[in-house]
Amino acid sequence: MSELAKLPGIGRRTAMRLALHLLRQDEATSEALGTAIIGLRRGVHYCRVCHNISDADLCGICGDQRRDRALVCVVEDIRDVMAVEATGQYRGLYHVLGGVISPMDGVGPGDLQIDSLVNRVAEGEIKEVILALGSTMEGDTTNFYIYRRLNAYPQVALSVIARGIAVGDELQYADEVTLGRAVVGRVPFNG
Amino acid sequence: MSELAKLPGIGRRTAMRLALHLLRQDEATSEALGTAIIGLRRGVHYCRVCHNISDADLCGICGDQRRDRALVCVVEDIRDVMAVEATGQYRGLYHVLGGVISPMDGVGPGDLQIDSLVNRVAEGEIKEVILALGSTMEGDTTNFYIYRRLNAYPQVALSVIARGIAVGDELQYADEVTLGRAVVGRVPFNG
Repeated sequence: MSELAKLPGIGRRTAMRLALHLLRQDEATSEALGTAIIGLRRGVHYCRVCHNISDADLCGICGDQRRDRALVCVVEDIRDVMAVEATGQYRGLYHVLGGVISPMDGVGPGDLQIDSLVNRVAEGEIKEVILALGSTMEGDTTNFYIYRRLNAYPQVALSVIARGIAVGDELQYADEVTLGRAVVGRVPFNG
Repeated sequence: MSELAKLPGIGRRTAMRLALHLLRQDEATSEALGTAIIGLRRGVHYCRVCHNISDADLCGICGDQRRDRALVCVVEDIRDVMAVEATGQYRGLYHVLGGVISPMDGVGPGDLQIDSLVNRVAEGEIKEVILALGSTMEGDTTNFYIYRRLNAYPQVALSVIARGIAVGDELQYADEVTLGRAVVGRVPFNG
């Protein structure tokens, strides 16, 4: 019970309920869950290139030769890789930072996979790095830090995902900052 | 009571409550409200150039000589003018369509202020038309219709406000279509 209660969002009462539920199950069911939990940490690796979650040394995306190896999308964490993959609009590779620079939370550039990003760029195959971090102060700070680090490689284009009105949204419900940026950052309309 | 109940969102019970409230007020208060309501329709005009709400024949924005007369922002209704003005990021003029093309609601191009937009463009002073309609199917249809109508004036640039992740938003909470468009529509990052 006390081990279950350490999980996020699970308090003492829920832990009790779960423990009693497991007691009522036959032994095989509980054992399967226990084995899966042990295997989770032992079996999951991180890709040595992009730091995405992976079964092997190299993840499925980095290993896929049909993907555009000249394009790298920088994201905060693994959920963002899933989010961008779900759009079906991106055929390049990723780089998972493992967080964003946040002095308030004690996260500095050294805690993130930024050196390894610079090393990947230094190898010379990458033509464009796409910054796809959240549009927060921490995301902006991290964008700027990466921009400065990649200044040494002028042959690599640096871009940032578009900010603006969400698809399906009405203008009058957008916040002022977003609408202001959307007007300033308008793009040519070609039908 | 029956006149009050014609207002949107006001049912029979609320109308009764409002009527009784007005009865309890002294006569001057009720008269002031009645006069204001009569004056509302008589005193409010629409700008003959941009169709924004106005006290006079020409609205305050169209009459303001400090604004950029070469730039026109096309919006659906008056609330959108207020929304863009509130950003403080735009110094051009407006054009209020009075709606968007919506065959489902029986709204065709002829019901909107599109001819008058084309006439404004034909006068030759306008250099850029910014499409700032909602990112809905109706908005897109209207954008495309205006694009075709303005094709006859190639000296006028046509642009559309940016679509993408709202400022302050995390990637993983964005919907797939918006995130997909934000990745495809990425822009150069210049620090």
